[in-house]
Amino acid sequence: MDAIEKLLAIEEIKKLKARYFRCMDTKDWAGLEAVFTEDLHADFREGSDPPFEGAITDGRRPYIEMLAPILNGIVTVHHGHMPEIHITSPTTATGIWAMEDKLWVKDRSVVPYGFLHGYGHYHETYRCEADGWKIASVRLTRLRIDQE
Amino acid sequence: MDAIEKLLAIEEIKKLKARYFRCMDTKDWAGLEAVFTEDLHADFREGSDPPFEGAITDGRRPYIEMLAPILNGIVTVHHGHMPEIHITSPTTATGIWAMEDKLWVKDRSVVPYGFLHGYGHYHETYRCEADGWKIASVRLTRLRIDQE
Amino acid sequence: MDAIEKLLAIEEIKKLKARYFRCMDTKDWAGLEAVFTEDLHADFREGSDPPFEGAITDGRRPYIEMLAPILNGIVTVHHGHMPEIHITSPTTATGIWAMEDKLWVKDRSVVPYGFLHGYGHYHETYRCEADGWKIASVRLTRLRIDQE
Repeated sequence: MDAIEKLLAIEEIKKLKARYFRCMDTKDWAGLEAVFTEDLHADFREGSDPPFEGAITDGRRPYIEMLAPILNGIVTVHHGHMPEIHITSPTTATGIWAMEDKLWVKDRSVVPYGFLHGYGHYHETYRCEADGWKIASVRLTRLRIDQE
Repeated sequence: MDAIEKLLAIEEIKKLKARYFRCMDTKDWAGLEAVFTEDLHADFREGSDPPFEGAITDGRRPYIEMLAPILNGIVTVHHGHMPEIHITSPTTATGIWAMEDKLWVKDRSVVPYGFLHGYGHYHETYRCEADGWKIASVRLTRLRIDQE
Repeated sequence: MDAIEKLLAIEEIKKLKARYFRCMDTKDWAGLEAVFTEDLHADFREGSDPPFEGAITDGRRPYIEMLAPILNGIVTVHHGHMPEIHITSPTTATGIWAMEDKLWVKDRSVVPYGFLHGYGHYHETYRCEADGWKIASVRLTRLRIDQE
């Protein structure tokens, strides 16, 4: 890939992650599913405190089927910052994003807190498929979590 | 437009929006006015809670004349995140930005709250004029607003 | 420099600043030192309230030697937003970043607060050295600081 192709890929991956955040927070589950590869590996064990060992899923379908029912009862705001995207081949890339999330829980039966405010980093890999770049794996690490 | 021209336009629009935020929060009203087209359409009805139906303005001059007297008595922090910029022609583009704003009100006679903390998205259009890209329209939607 | 070279330099500087934030918040002091030129000029007088006139350092080594012992006892989250990067020559550039920081202090003997939440802008210069772009100077200005 030449310099322009790399810059284009980086911009596409930034837009991809923007759709991830927007679809998550507006609860557009079909849109959210479309940002992932079919074989998505998602590791959100550090999402809440204490870490939840069960929060590893394989496949975008199982991930959305697990996530959507939980988040439908929660107002969420997820913000991403300061991407470090590295294009490793014409069809693969890695990325680190700083992040902050807030969850205001309406139905406390689904999660063990009424409000969560977290900070950390997403560590991701991307794959370019026929219809564009997708998130192939994501792992969340935390700097701090405040829960009430 | 070729790929490089599109990437350059996207970067210019990101810088334009950065000036929007910086001029707003540092109360540089001449600088803020310069980021808009003369025929700016601004829809901030969802800016506060409940929505304020009067918060639609046409023209950058009326917008600044409405906004500046209000914000001069308020410390504001507006942050933008995760742009999705699409160049639709050599002189037009669209953009969505995630956003968060905080307003600490010194003079409570101008707005019906002492502190506002909001989250949402800007939905914008841009136009490239003789002296560069400008914001031609902006509409704010909200995920959540906390007011005290 | 042509358009592509400028876009590449801008993306490299964005990644450089991303490493600055990530190394700071994960307390990777060797990684943090590597983002600066050896003759770094750092002006963080407005970092806390009231401004601390002593918070000007010259040289990346003295800066890290001052900073690391303080931050080792503090959980920090620093986020950067909305860069305005201008490439001024093949080896020099300027940048403004909106910022927000939170410091949760475990050992109150090192700083005069238990919690700090600040908002402002970094005003920076960059220099391209043999091994890439570095931060040559940084000055922090504030919109607001809340301390407890």
